[in-house]
Formats: sequence, structure tokens, C-alpha cells
Amino acid sequence: MPSYRAPVEDTLFLLNDVLGFHRHANLAGFSEASRDVVEAVLSEGGKLADEVLAPVNQVGDVEGCTREADGAVRTPKGFKAAYDAYARGGWMGLSVPEEYGGQGLPHTLNTAMQEFASGANLALGMYPGLTQGAMAALLVHGSEAQKTTYLPKMVEGAWTGTMNLTEPHCGTDLGLLKTKAVPNGDGSYALTGTKIFISAGEHDLSENIVHLVIARIEGAPAGTKGISLFVVPKFLVEADGSVGARNGVSCGSIEHKMGIHGNSTCVMNYDGATGWLVGQENRGLAAMFVMMNEARLAVGVQGLGQSEVAYQNAVAYAKDRLQGRALTGAKEPAKAADPIIVHPDVRRTLMGIRAFNESARALMLWTALQSDISHRSEDAKERQTADDLLGLLTPVVKGVLTDRGFANAVEAQQMFGGHGYIEEWGMSQFVRDARIAMIYEGANGIQAMDLIGRKLPKDGGRAMMAFLGEVQAFIEAHEDAAMAPFTGPLQAGLKDLQGATMWLMQNAFAKPDNAGAAATDYMHLLGLVAMGYMWARIAKAAAAKPGDARMEAKLVTGRFYMERTLPETATRLARIKAGADTTMALAAEAF
Amino acid sequence: MPSYRAPVEDTLFLLNDVLGFHRHANLAGFSEASRDVVEAVLSEGGKLADEVLAPVNQVGDVEGCTREADGAVRTPKGFKAAYDAYARGGWMGLSVPEEYGGQGLPHTLNTAMQEFASGANLALGMYPGLTQGAMAALLVHGSEAQKTTYLPKMVEGAWTGTMNLTEPHCGTDLGLLKTKAVPNGDGSYALTGTKIFISAGEHDLSENIVHLVIARIEGAPAGTKGISLFVVPKFLVEADGSVGARNGVSCGSIEHKMGIHGNSTCVMNYDGATGWLVGQENRGLAAMFVMMNEARLAVGVQGLGQSEVAYQNAVAYAKDRLQGRALTGAKEPAKAADPIIVHPDVRRTLMGIRAFNESARALMLWTALQSDISHRSEDAKERQTADDLLGLLTPVVKGVLTDRGFANAVEAQQMFGGHGYIEEWGMSQFVRDARIAMIYEGANGIQAMDLIGRKLPKDGGRAMMAFLGEVQAFIEAHEDAAMAPFTGPLQAGLKDLQGATMWLMQNAFAKPDNAGAAATDYMHLLGLVAMGYMWARIAKAAAAKPGDARMEAKLVTGRFYMERTLPETATRLARIKAGADTTMALAAEAF
Repeated sequence: MPSYRAPVEDTLFLLNDVLGFHRHANLAGFSEASRDVVEAVLSEGGKLADEVLAPVNQVGDVEGCTREADGAVRTPKGFKAAYDAYARGGWMGLSVPEEYGGQGLPHTLNTAMQEFASGANLALGMYPGLTQGAMAALLVHGSEAQKTTYLPKMVEGAWTGTMNLTEPHCGTDLGLLKTKAVPNGDGSYALTGTKIFISAGEHDLSENIVHLVIARIEGAPAGTKGISLFVVPKFLVEADGSVGARNGVSCGSIEHKMGIHGNSTCVMNYDGATGWLVGQENRGLAAMFVMMNEARLAVGVQGLGQSEVAYQNAVAYAKDRLQGRALTGAKEPAKAADPIIVHPDVRRTLMGIRAFNESARALMLWTALQSDISHRSEDAKERQTADDLLGLLTPVVKGVLTDRGFANAVEAQQMFGGHGYIEEWGMSQFVRDARIAMIYEGANGIQAMDLIGRKLPKDGGRAMMAFLGEVQAFIEAHEDAAMAPFTGPLQAGLKDLQGATMWLMQNAFAKPDNAGAAATDYMHLLGLVAMGYMWARIAKAAAAKPGDARMEAKLVTGRFYMERTLPETATRLARIKAGADTTMALAAEAF
Repeated sequence: MPSYRAPVEDTLFLLNDVLGFHRHANLAGFSEASRDVVEAVLSEGGKLADEVLAPVNQVGDVEGCTREADGAVRTPKGFKAAYDAYARGGWMGLSVPEEYGGQGLPHTLNTAMQEFASGANLALGMYPGLTQGAMAALLVHGSEAQKTTYLPKMVEGAWTGTMNLTEPHCGTDLGLLKTKAVPNGDGSYALTGTKIFISAGEHDLSENIVHLVIARIEGAPAGTKGISLFVVPKFLVEADGSVGARNGVSCGSIEHKMGIHGNSTCVMNYDGATGWLVGQENRGLAAMFVMMNEARLAVGVQGLGQSEVAYQNAVAYAKDRLQGRALTGAKEPAKAADPIIVHPDVRRTLMGIRAFNESARALMLWTALQSDISHRSEDAKERQTADDLLGLLTPVVKGVLTDRGFANAVEAQQMFGGHGYIEEWGMSQFVRDARIAMIYEGANGIQAMDLIGRKLPKDGGRAMMAFLGEVQAFIEAHEDAAMAPFTGPLQAGLKDLQGATMWLMQNAFAKPDNAGAAATDYMHLLGLVAMGYMWARIAKAAAAKPGDARMEAKLVTGRFYMERTLPETATRLARIKAGADTTMALAAEAF
């Protein structure tokens, strides 16, 4: 059976030695997050992931969810107990303000825990993950009454949350949505319509489910300007906060999916369900975007989680499986063959995944830290800088970490030869589960368009200029020989990113298709450089700890990234500069 | 439900106008394969794939194979009828010599049909595919008695074939195998052992199954020098050729796999089963390699087949699904939204897959043609040249076409957004089915090692020198302005390939790990250039037919390849030149 061990030690190194987490003690919640507290929190979280969530991962895949004739949905054996342990541990409200029952700790720590949960059991981790997304939207846009009604129960884990956006005919293009909301005259609305792909839409883990639903109020303008956000509980809430009558929302069916079988993906039918407006009328999309940005980061983290667990199991197999001899002569002559980890092509694969995982984790935590700063700093300038960076990096974390996370799971599966294709070994599940992360919360092509069409040109390109400036300044501040293997390649990658950005400025405004055709490559180019920057910062921290074997390994792994992963920027740049001509030339009928 | 249409027209164009198939009328079987005959054969084959094999593809995935308590295996509903239609059509023996009941037509046509069958229904296509592989080994290494006993029945499809190599503890490293063969004293042997991952090992499609099994004769040398090949029929064959008593071989269990559910993947138990030596004692691996080379080409073709069917379904969805508006303004203002094929990022994906498919098909047919020439030419020099090229390109066709074929299936699935993740849409099956082709018949890392360690240095690098020379000569012969968009980038790619080859000559002999660490990138680099060469030849043929819309589309698609796919050679070269240092530096314990 596959196993998982949360990368607690690596996370602590990144927070303490690379990202300067503790320099932010001035931010709300950070002074409570001392070194000891952070270590205790992450160790506990890692233990929960390793010992409670991971052991029910494979059974969740095999058993899946079951919808009963009455519309109730049963989760796989062991999920309820594991979920309860998660909720009891206080993880749901780790970074929720204390006034609503949370612990008010930095979101950065919550993000680290999301990686552990996603790596251990993606399908199970989604139930709390969606609840946290729903809480984020209520925190920002909910009325005080809504917050006090829903948040404490959700923090407890007694109630869970969902996001209801997609309809059969609209996913990306939400302006087309048809679910309608009719005022009941008492401040509430009656919602009617069908939502699809609703993760955790119905299940047996919690006593109530808090659906956040976008719908069109009768008479609202067409398109995205007429969308409002509503909160629609599965069971209506009594005045005393207890669970009351069943609301008019039910699960019509669950989907048979490629992976994440342990998570119920529901068609939700709203038949005059009672809901309450969250935030302003017709401003629902903006409210939903709050939730989506947080959710997008969380999904990027899922890509990393699956890459990490796939890597760990591939390493174990590569050390155990005896096949062939090292090219340089037998390494274990007493055995019938050497373990396959002696083979350079196996090493290449493992080093490639590892070099990704360690820098992706740094990028994830750095981005999460910007989220904390942007929300918690009292300095407007600092908030703006962090918010710029957060906006710029969110599509990169979502798009690149899930594209590469999936590809890495495939490469790790490949290590197993034929056994990788057999379900009982577990590698197939990592691949199938990782696949969803490229799709939901905005397919990765949409992330790329968000980056190139919205985040890049915003405020005259301020965010990108700041990022380029920060990386350049780091390179210039570290021109010593020890850092040259990192700063040299990083400079070359940065030049490609600058070249691509310049090319877009000159060619995309007049011809928007040039931006569209460049979007995915640009997103990956930025990801390559951002992770290269992370490696340079990791290398600096590692070099400061000579004699530590773990740090020596970091330096080797970082050089591998610089020599073998980062050079991909050249190809990305060439594609971007090719423009949209051949991409767009054919008539649709020619396909 | 997904659909499939065999690319008959494109195949005919490649054979007739690009590869000069009909210039080889001097080869045995080619004069019978006139233009009319080829068109008739491929049209019939395409029809069978579209109308008989494809309709049972999805049911095969959902239902899978079932092993009964007595060890019998039931294939999915509809498989038997589809298989019978395939056999009745004479496809099994298309290129088998007429003396054994075949049609003696070129193997190139058989390869084209393999693409159609693989695209329509990979799991079903494997039953005849393995039979053809087994026939190939018997044709080359079997005794005349073995040929007349088995081949006519296999050509008919009344009996099918399998390849039994893998054991629980050995896949790649066959020297470790334990299955033993004890002489019975009557010229036959008693085989005892366990084989795993035996595709089509047991099923209900044929009245007998001809297992080709490698085993160690009692007292044989250790390692690969002590391996012999045996033929072991499921039912012993009576003197009159009819099916007799059950042999001591049975299916112990079938695997629960990620995909190709319609093909039975069996654990085969040999309990003193009666077998007969094929070829010479202790020369079994060489005999098996004959079968494997043919099988490797066929597996590469499977990668293309899945890429093609995934592409076709993605195109249909992209034209149908309405979401968002074109960046350049509404293309279908009367509808609620434009079809997503207007979006550059969707186009980029479709063009990328298409540019691969069309050149991969050319590469596959060109390689198959070398196989025909190497077997059928009466000119020793011509045979040698073709055999060199065949050997060089076989690992590329297997490794690159399956790596990219899988990646393309994933990209095509991505077009569908959330629907791509739902099994009923069929895109998940293409991804899951395509995944196996990267693994079996030698995992792709093994293909890369075969290329760099065996095929490249063989005969002083003669094959590679000839390939480089042929591409260079083509470029120099086509320096006109019309061909410049093709020959210019091809020259750049060729330069990278030459650079990588030179670097290996200088750095791999002294340090073999440099070759091992470069292998996968070198295989893909050669694949990129070989497909670029195919595009240049296609472009030349297309340019000769002005005014033909299909040819105009070829020219655009080829330029897309040159501008956006081929530049990846630069990254591959950079990785190769990085050498093995960081790849091999860490101790195994550091992972």
C-alpha cells in the first residue's frame, strides 16, 4: 500500500530560513505563531495527515461515494472518522478570526496544512478545503448575522461548505447562468435551477451543508453584471442556531469520475430553495472571486501534494526494486541485481520531481505569505505590494503547480513499470486524482488568460515590474562565486521572461490573439523563473549551513533545477514570439 | 458517446505523395499493392475500425474482463463479434506470406491498419496485435512444422497469440527469470513458473491460444545467455491440426488496471505445461527481440492512435461548446456565446496535437516502410540502409509517439473542462488507455537506453550518420523561398541534434552515466527532428498541390510545428549537455 509522510521538516526550513516568516511578527496572528508554535502546529498536522488521512486514501478510491435512492450520499468507509479527527484538531478554523471560533493564525500555516492534507488524501481534504473557501467568502462579504450564524459551526466542522457556480451550459462563462432567485418578500429569495460538478454537494460528514450559490435575481441585467451570491443551507437554521427544516435543495445524481472518487461530485437541484443574499445585489461574481482566489491557491497546492506523495512512493520503489546493474559496475554485487535507483534515467526522473517539489513548496508558501501580508498589514504600501504579487502569482501557482504536479505523478508512476498501471499499487490513483486539479477552479488555460489578460496589464504592469525588479536585485546582491551556479542561470531565465513580457507589450495590444496564443507558455515561463528564484533563495539559506547533509542535498537539487529544468524558458520564449498567425490561420471547418 | 473516424485519406496522401510507397514495386508484395488496392484495403480497414471496433470501445472500458472461478476469462459484451469481423476481414494475415494463408501485402499497410484499430479500440486491437507479434517470431525462428501447425490458424484468427516474458521479480532485466523448462525426452519440454502482465493471456475470443514463453532450460547458463523460447499452446494440437487436450497452463488471476479494461491482463501459471523449443537453445532472447521490435513499433502506433481519437473528439467539442467570446469580437453574435474553437488557447492545443499526429503518422509509415525494405529487398545495401534506419527509429517511434500521444490525450481531455473528468464523456478512457503504451514493450526509459546505448553506437554510428546526412541533403536540395519556413527551423533543429550527438561521442564513452542521464532527452530530440523532417517532406508534397484546401491546411499545420514544437530541441540539448553530475551526485539515502 502506498504511504505518505508530510514534509514538515522542509516546510519549517522554508518558513524559518528561506522566507523569513518570523520577520512578520507585526502582523495580526503572527506574534502568536512563534517558532515553537509553528513547529508544534505543523508536526501535529503532519501526524494527522500521515496517520489518519493517508490510510483511508486508497479505500476511498476503490469504494467511492454512493448516492442512496433518497438522494443521501454515503462517503467511503473511514472517511467520517478521519474527517472528525480533522475537525476536532481545530484545523478548519486555523486561520479564521478568533471571534468566530477560529485560531486566527496565519493563512500561510493553513496553506502548509492544505499541502499535507492534499498529499495524504486529496478527495477527503476537499471537504474541509471547500468549507474554508466558503468561509473566506462569508468573512469578506457576509453580513454580521450571516457570519455569526454560519462561521462558528463551520469552524467546528459541524457544518461544511460548498461553492455552486457551474451549470450544464456554463462553466468558464458564468454570464450565461440561468439559476434564478425570486424575492420571497421577507428578505429571503427562492432559488431555482440546476448546478453541476458541485464537490462535496451532499455527503454524510456533517450535520448541515452551507451552499454558496450564484444566481440571477429576477429582472437582473444579462451577463456577468446580473449575478448575485446567496447562502443556501441544506437545513434551514432556527433562531437559536440549531438545524431546522430541510431546504429545497437536493442531490440529483453523483458523477462517475476519473479520480477523487472519495469526494462526492453532485448535480444539485434547487427547487425554490430558500437563500439569502451575500453582499450586494448583482455583485456576486466579485464576491465569488474572493473565494476563488483562495481556492485557486489551494488547488495549486493539491498539485504539489500529489507530486510529493507520488515522489515519495517512487523513491521507495526505486530503492527496493532490483533490476539490472549500474552502468558504472554493480553497486550491490551480493544481490541478484542493483536497485533501480542506480540508473541515471531513474535518477533523472526522481531529481526532476524533487527539484520541482521543493521549489514549488517555497513558491506556495511565499505566495501564501503575500496573502497574509495583504490582509493583515497595517501599512498600505506593504499591503499593495503583497496584493500585487499575490494576484500575479495566484494563476501561476494554480496553473503551473497542477500541470507539473500531474506530469510528475505520471513520471513517478512510470518508475514502477507495469506495476504502476495496476491499481493496487496506488500510483494510478495519484495520477487520476492529480488530473482534476488542472481542471477545476478555472481550467489552466483560464488561469493563463487571467495572468496575461488581467494580472499582467493591471496598473500599468506594476506587479510584474516589481517581480522582475525583485529577482534582478537578488541576482545583483549575490554575485559571489558560490551563488554563481544559481544566479547565472536565473539571470538567463529572467532575460527570457523580460523578453517575453516586452514582446507582449509590443504585440498583444494591437492583436489580442497574440496574447491568447502566448498565454499558457507565458504562465509556465513565469513559473519556471519564479521557482528558479525560489531555488536561488533556498541555495543561499542552505549554503549558510555547511556540513548539514540535508542542506548539501538542497544545493545539488537546486543545481539540477538550474541546469535541467530552467532552460525550458528558451522554448517557451520561442513559442510566445511565434505569435498567433499559424495558431489562428485555419478556418474552424478545416479542423 | 465519443466517436472515431480512421484517417484513411491522410494515410493515402502520405503513402502516395510523401513517402513514394509505389516506387517500391520491386519488393515482394508491393506490386500487388497498387494504388487502387491500397485505397480499397485502407478504406475497408477504416470502415471496420469506425463501424465495428469503435462502437464497443466504451463498453469495454466500463465492463472490463471477468475471470470465472474455473480460470476462464470473459471479454466485454460485443468484443467477440467485433473480433470475429476483424478476423473474417483477413486483417490478421494482411502481411503474412501467402503460403501460410496470409495476403503477403506490405507490412506498411498492416501498420496503417494497426493505427486505425488502436484509435478505434485499443483494448480490442491488442488481441490481434499480440497474435501478429507471435506470428512474426514464429515466422523468423519457428521450424517449418511449427509454422504450418500454428500460422494458418492464427492467420484465420481461430487461434490467437501471446508473449510471456515478465515475471514478478523481473521485467526489464530478463536475465533474472526463473521459469524453468525440463526436457520430456520426446523433444518437448515441461515448463513450470509464473508469468505476469500477460496481455490476452486468457479470453473467449479464440478456440486456442498460442503462448510464446521464455524460460530457462535446466542447467542453462545464468543470466540472459541461458534463456530459450518455447511455444506452449493452451490446448495441445493433434496430429491432424485439430485442438486436443488442455495443456498445463492457466490464468491465475487478472489485473485491475488503470485502463485497457477490455484486454485481459493475466497472471499465467505454468504447471509442467508442454512446450516446444522455438529456434536454438539459449538463444531465446534474440528470438524474442524479433517479436519485440515489431511489437515496439505497434505500441508506438497505439500512442498515435489514442492521440488521433482524442483530437477528433476534442475538435467536435470545441466546435460545439459555446462559452465566451472571441478576443477579436463575437464570431457568432446570434448565439449566446461563441464556440470555444475561437479561443487562441484552445486553438494552440488543437494545432499542437494535430501537428504531432500528422507528422507522427508519416514517421510511423516511413519506419514501417524501412521494415518492408529491410525484409523484402533483394539488394543487400538497400536492406542494410533500411535496417539501420529501422533500428534507429524503432525506439523513437515507441518512446516519443507514446509519451506525446499520452500527453496529447491529456490536452484533448483538458478542452472539455469538467466534462473531461467525467467517465461518460470518454476522454478519461483515452488518457487511461494511452498511459499503458508508455510502459509495456519496454518502458520508455528503456527505449531511450536502447537508442543511446545500442542503436546509436552500433557500427560506428552508421545509422545516425545516415539519418543526419539524409536530412541535411533534403535541406540543401530545398533552399527555395517557399520551403524556407520549413528548412530553416529544421536546420536549427538538426544542428541541435548534431551538437548532442557530438557531445555524447566526446563525453559518454569515458563516463557512461552521461549517456544514461541524456537518454530520454536524446530520444525526444531525435523524435522532434525526425518529425520536423517529415513535416518538411509533407510540405513539399502539399505545395505541389496548390488550391487544395486540405493541402493549405497542411502547410499551416507544418509551420505551426516548425514555430512552436520544434524549438524544444534547444531545451533538450541544454539538458543533455548538463551531463550526469547533479543527476548522480546524491547518495541513495538522500532521497
